[in-house]
Amino acid sequence: MLEHTPITHTGRDVDRHASRLARLRDVLTAAGADGVVLAPGTDLRYLAGYDALAQERPTLLLVPAAGPVTLVAPRLERARAAVEVRLPSFTLLTYGEHDDALAAAAAALDLPDGAEVAVGDRTWSAFTLGLQAALPGRRWRTAAGLLAPLRQVKDADELAALARVAGAIDDVHRRVPDLLRAGRTEREVAADLAALIREGHDSVSFVIVASGPNAASPHHEPGERPLAHGDAVVVDIGGLLDGYGSDMTRTYAVGTPPDGFVAAYDALQAAQAAAVAAVQPGVTAGAIDAVARDALTAAGLGDAFVHRTGHGIGLDTHEEPWILAGSDVPLTPGMAFSVEPGFYLEGRYGARIEDIVVVTDDGVRPLNRVTHDLVVVP
Amino acid sequence: MLEHTPITHTGRDVDRHASRLARLRDVLTAAGADGVVLAPGTDLRYLAGYDALAQERPTLLLVPAAGPVTLVAPRLERARAAVEVRLPSFTLLTYGEHDDALAAAAAALDLPDGAEVAVGDRTWSAFTLGLQAALPGRRWRTAAGLLAPLRQVKDADELAALARVAGAIDDVHRRVPDLLRAGRTEREVAADLAALIREGHDSVSFVIVASGPNAASPHHEPGERPLAHGDAVVVDIGGLLDGYGSDMTRTYAVGTPPDGFVAAYDALQAAQAAAVAAVQPGVTAGAIDAVARDALTAAGLGDAFVHRTGHGIGLDTHEEPWILAGSDVPLTPGMAFSVEPGFYLEGRYGARIEDIVVVTDDGVRPLNRVTHDLVVVP
Repeated sequence: MLEHTPITHTGRDVDRHASRLARLRDVLTAAGADGVVLAPGTDLRYLAGYDALAQERPTLLLVPAAGPVTLVAPRLERARAAVEVRLPSFTLLTYGEHDDALAAAAAALDLPDGAEVAVGDRTWSAFTLGLQAALPGRRWRTAAGLLAPLRQVKDADELAALARVAGAIDDVHRRVPDLLRAGRTEREVAADLAALIREGHDSVSFVIVASGPNAASPHHEPGERPLAHGDAVVVDIGGLLDGYGSDMTRTYAVGTPPDGFVAAYDALQAAQAAAVAAVQPGVTAGAIDAVARDALTAAGLGDAFVHRTGHGIGLDTHEEPWILAGSDVPLTPGMAFSVEPGFYLEGRYGARIEDIVVVTDDGVRPLNRVTHDLVVVP
Repeated sequence: MLEHTPITHTGRDVDRHASRLARLRDVLTAAGADGVVLAPGTDLRYLAGYDALAQERPTLLLVPAAGPVTLVAPRLERARAAVEVRLPSFTLLTYGEHDDALAAAAAALDLPDGAEVAVGDRTWSAFTLGLQAALPGRRWRTAAGLLAPLRQVKDADELAALARVAGAIDDVHRRVPDLLRAGRTEREVAADLAALIREGHDSVSFVIVASGPNAASPHHEPGERPLAHGDAVVVDIGGLLDGYGSDMTRTYAVGTPPDGFVAAYDALQAAQAAAVAAVQPGVTAGAIDAVARDALTAAGLGDAFVHRTGHGIGLDTHEEPWILAGSDVPLTPGMAFSVEPGFYLEGRYGARIEDIVVVTDDGVRPLNRVTHDLVVVP
């Protein structure tokens, strides 16, 4: 049974979401899109403050460029949704276990033939394909480019949250040297790291411990390899605190690292520092990538730097802006992103250094404070 | 730069995935679909054993109904993908940071105009919309109905994994009475439960602690409400162990529960037991729902039972079969699902009892063993 309930809220957090909603509508209108559909995930949290359950029963926020907002939700989420969707005014449309939820959403969206509908980029395809079937003749596009202009520039509360969670991951990295000993497996070290991350975060997002030749794989999954004397070990870790992410990499050495590694590491450290120092308003994301890439290329490591220099961070650990060669996105005060060049030599070793930095009115503020020098443990 | 690498593997796990792949192709052909696209998630793990990173860089398994399999992956995942995709034979197609990954995937999919392409139901819409743009003229559908016939019937290894993880959550529920005391908040209890779940699982999937009137919201988020004498408390918890999920609910009372609650609970307990006892091969999912619903309706609680009776469980905590009124899906040996009737009286109280059960050759095997009686703590 479908039920329509008008809901109103007030409060400081409601004002914040109302302002985001108004800006999104401006972006929608400028882009020629007639509406946007958002499913559980960070877009919905950003826009409405609702940390909805991602499940097979669709929860969809329907935002027309003009006209009232509707949240479509399963009946058994009604009590939560009525309280936790922090928008000033919306219709809560709940459906029962036997209703066609996507047909109800399509009807509530109420956009004419030929309209352009944007869909949150991580919305499950089952929902998007179902809406497409229920609304033939509309044009469909991803909402990524519509939300990014809002989400990539953080407000003061968001920057404070990012600074707190960066401090929490700093605390973990300070204790990494105690965990690295020859004979311990990557997996054992990773389990200890997860426990340490939990101490200062609400949850663990990822733990990469890549030792010796495994460090040549940037996203290596910790395995049964025991650490050995002479290993370089890449430790890339992150978690969530109050909804915002940390993401920080340091490279350690167990005993004396292999020939050539220290010189390469020194070049990496210089490249990372130069890229951070280049951050300021008006510079493009691509220019930051170029600083890191040119420095590594000059050291003969250009081909070994196989990924972009960084990514934005906020409610998602990876979000816009991408710090990518060729990007002409201008850096703006309030943007927060990683600067994380690395080198990866297959069969031999690898290294990466990663900080989160914030663009300020006149330069850059790095949020991570732990030394960038190679820390050698016995 | 695009790179195509032919990969072959052998082994018992490879044989298992080869058999799943062959069955999927039979299902594709029978359904008239020409190919399927799977992104990181449980479908990809089920079919290929690959626990890929879900990120903005697409990883896509392309399975034509006839023809060779391709895994499209970012270059920096190449080392992992080559080892962890456990299929007998496939092409690993990697792309660099400046390639158009979705254009490369569209070309590799190589399906003609008019072909029907199925997309994994939780694939991010950004990827599906990108593929649609790159492949106009094809017909698109969700792959949910194609994977479900395979995934919902578990093999012996999967049933053993489900029994192990059910035992782990049983162990947590045995310790719940020690955690429930008047004055402790839902959030404090939930934090203790998360720690206990981690002891026997690899990760925590969810923790619901819903006390007093909050228990009338089936998916209540634990909050700052302190437990009070007279509360009924719904504790619904689950985690993952070796990739498979647990999901188990018991309802407790702190001191003497409110008038009417005990009689309602007794009716619920009888309804849940009757629904479990009705499980056997050939009976429909809808018939199991009817047993629980009819029993609660006879007790005057039919309107208070606001959700379906259960859901399948495996690599996903919620998956097919749905134990839903009207479903004509016949139960088959090897199916595993929850049986979880409840009642929810807004402003007053609620209760739910949930076990995971397996359909055997001649009946049912419940995997959870903790008492269904109302446990009253002082």
